[in-house]
Amino acid sequence: MSQHVIETQSSQAGQLSEVVRKAQLAKAAAPKLALLTTEQKNNVLLRIADALVEQAASIIEANALDLHRGRENGTSASLLDRIALNETRIAAMAEGLRQVVLLPDPVGEELESFERPNGLSIRKVRVPLGVIGMIYEARPNVTVDAAGLCLKTGNAVVLRGGSAALESNRRIVEVLHETMAQTVMPADALQLILDPSRSSADEMLKLNGLLDVLIPRGGASLIQNVVKNASVPVIETGAGICHTYVDASADPDMALKIAINAKVQRPSVCNSMETMLVHRDFAAKHLAAIAEQFVQQKVELRGDAASRELFPAIKEASEQDWDTEYSDYILNIRIVDHLDQAIEHITAHGTQHSECIVTEDEANAVRFLNEIDAAAVYHNASTRFTDGFEFGFGAEIGISTQKLHVRGPMGLPSLTSTKYIIVGSGQIRG
Amino acid sequence: MSQHVIETQSSQAGQLSEVVRKAQLAKAAAPKLALLTTEQKNNVLLRIADALVEQAASIIEANALDLHRGRENGTSASLLDRIALNETRIAAMAEGLRQVVLLPDPVGEELESFERPNGLSIRKVRVPLGVIGMIYEARPNVTVDAAGLCLKTGNAVVLRGGSAALESNRRIVEVLHETMAQTVMPADALQLILDPSRSSADEMLKLNGLLDVLIPRGGASLIQNVVKNASVPVIETGAGICHTYVDASADPDMALKIAINAKVQRPSVCNSMETMLVHRDFAAKHLAAIAEQFVQQKVELRGDAASRELFPAIKEASEQDWDTEYSDYILNIRIVDHLDQAIEHITAHGTQHSECIVTEDEANAVRFLNEIDAAAVYHNASTRFTDGFEFGFGAEIGISTQKLHVRGPMGLPSLTSTKYIIVGSGQIRG
Repeated sequence: MSQHVIETQSSQAGQLSEVVRKAQLAKAAAPKLALLTTEQKNNVLLRIADALVEQAASIIEANALDLHRGRENGTSASLLDRIALNETRIAAMAEGLRQVVLLPDPVGEELESFERPNGLSIRKVRVPLGVIGMIYEARPNVTVDAAGLCLKTGNAVVLRGGSAALESNRRIVEVLHETMAQTVMPADALQLILDPSRSSADEMLKLNGLLDVLIPRGGASLIQNVVKNASVPVIETGAGICHTYVDASADPDMALKIAINAKVQRPSVCNSMETMLVHRDFAAKHLAAIAEQFVQQKVELRGDAASRELFPAIKEASEQDWDTEYSDYILNIRIVDHLDQAIEHITAHGTQHSECIVTEDEANAVRFLNEIDAAAVYHNASTRFTDGFEFGFGAEIGISTQKLHVRGPMGLPSLTSTKYIIVGSGQIRG
Repeated sequence: MSQHVIETQSSQAGQLSEVVRKAQLAKAAAPKLALLTTEQKNNVLLRIADALVEQAASIIEANALDLHRGRENGTSASLLDRIALNETRIAAMAEGLRQVVLLPDPVGEELESFERPNGLSIRKVRVPLGVIGMIYEARPNVTVDAAGLCLKTGNAVVLRGGSAALESNRRIVEVLHETMAQTVMPADALQLILDPSRSSADEMLKLNGLLDVLIPRGGASLIQNVVKNASVPVIETGAGICHTYVDASADPDMALKIAINAKVQRPSVCNSMETMLVHRDFAAKHLAAIAEQFVQQKVELRGDAASRELFPAIKEASEQDWDTEYSDYILNIRIVDHLDQAIEHITAHGTQHSECIVTEDEANAVRFLNEIDAAAVYHNASTRFTDGFEFGFGAEIGISTQKLHVRGPMGLPSLTSTKYIIVGSGQIRG
């Protein structure tokens, strides 16, 4: 398999691209990494954390080059802020690694164990995935995060960060490599692609045989490019058009609190609410008060005709609005006649991320929780809880929006595969 | 999402292709199917089994059309045999469904349950994947198999079988539809693509938003086309270049028995052996006897120089041979100096399917089982056991050769995803 990849990806006889060359190095290092004990891996991560703090000055210096080039190229202030590193942010990166050290190592966990009538003993155990490709955007802390999570789970990793943080990432990975080189962990298990062109990312998408999985992290266009064009298996994260359905019997205070939290506590993230569906009876009594609160929170409201009759400041929603992830202070409102209509709307317009019903009617709650197909379904709680830390997983790898392998918030076990170990005494198949 | 797919896939304004139209019907039926109880699904499968037997004559009639067209087109005798149906084969299809009825239904199984400090109760339960796309080749029994496994697990399914069995598949699905129409199970949950052109299969590969997963079943070129070109997540099955390493301390009788079984019990399947690696010391004493047995079993032997010195009837193996899945009565033989060389060879040339060590040395066995990265690793047993039935899963969905979602033999749970159900009392995120 890898042979094939090598041949087709070589640009010239004997001339491998940076991506193929580094992926090969990662693949070659993966078996050694996979055999390290939890203690060995944790010790390396702790040394890396210390080294990042010790080398903070040189990282900030490299970061200044990125910021300087960004300003010359007219990069927006908000992007420059995401790229910028200082001692506090570097200390936070190191602290993140120390948190990962405290998490249980899933590798080696026995998931099943059984004996067959013919005497074969079969065990299913967790093993590393192998080589993980991470494609991401500007923030250089992702470089440390991703490296820490992958190495903790015994996976080699090929990082391809955004060009805007290239110098920062280069220096960070140098610090990691220098540290790893003093330990039992093969430094080749961590690779950073320096070619900032789009073609280096696209090349990674086709590296079957060298990469076992791709995890894109970033905006919708980055993720969709990976999902649409990768032949390497992908864990898709990101998109969320989340709904809160306020049922007829909802507690008005609870509904208000949950709806406001789901929209404004952090509108930019995928588990925030984009559309509020309100039962006609509840709306008649309470929509105006809730809408008033949204207006005070500077949320632009768009809605159907029925909602606009109840609260005229609501603008008319277009058909497209119901399918839009605003990630902003904008909210759609629709009045529905019954639970079925709410379920139909969510099925038609949701992205199967996080969906909530606020109700005091137990039967309606059970129907909603069963019938809505989403990674996380809530009764009487904010959709903002769909998050690895909030679920107690202790790590923020992302929130899977696909149904294969892992769905919803991802903990360390999502970075593992399994292996069957079969022990016999000469059994053959008849 | 689905809106987008519909627009881009319509060939004309208002004109949907067969593939998109049927995938939409399947997607619309999936939520109803997902809510059926185990008993309801089992009852439908039993009625379908009866109906297949009752309608056997009409299925055999349709099958005759396929066979007639096949003969006219010069289809090979072995392919015609795979397509041919008779009462016995139809009874076996029905019996297969009855076996699936007896298997536990994974849907609804609670995998985790925990409460967070803020009082949120979180449960992780198994749910159907949604809509499964199956792309396969000639044998019409796959149509019934796939339908049974998907419907049992609450999944809608879009079947795209080979054109050589089109009439047989059409009549089989008619029988299933007629039966389902008399039950609580929505008939739309089962769809068969009738367009026999390559473009109908290729269209399925891009149906993100309508199909949740693709499972290709068939030869290497079919599977590779799906893996390379699909944007829908794929479960890859099939390829196997499996090795048996006979260590210095191996029991000679056991080694002979396992090696012969791994090669000749059924050479055409993916878990059969393609290459035997033999420790130099063992080979000096026992290779000739084992090779002699292979020759008696009509196995063509290809090997390295060292093996040919010990048994001159072995032909010279080419570099390509070590990377070839023969699926035939051909075996590569290589002499190695030690365990490390065997592990290196397997790592370089294996496909991470099934790998075996025959040894009486416990330390070597443990090293092999830990260091070889494959779906199934064996100590002193034939690689032919890598199979859903042999593992006790009771179903033959395939053997996954990828690391995401499921690896190795697939049981019914591999056709499910999960969902988090969170119940609160008004919790919001601070």
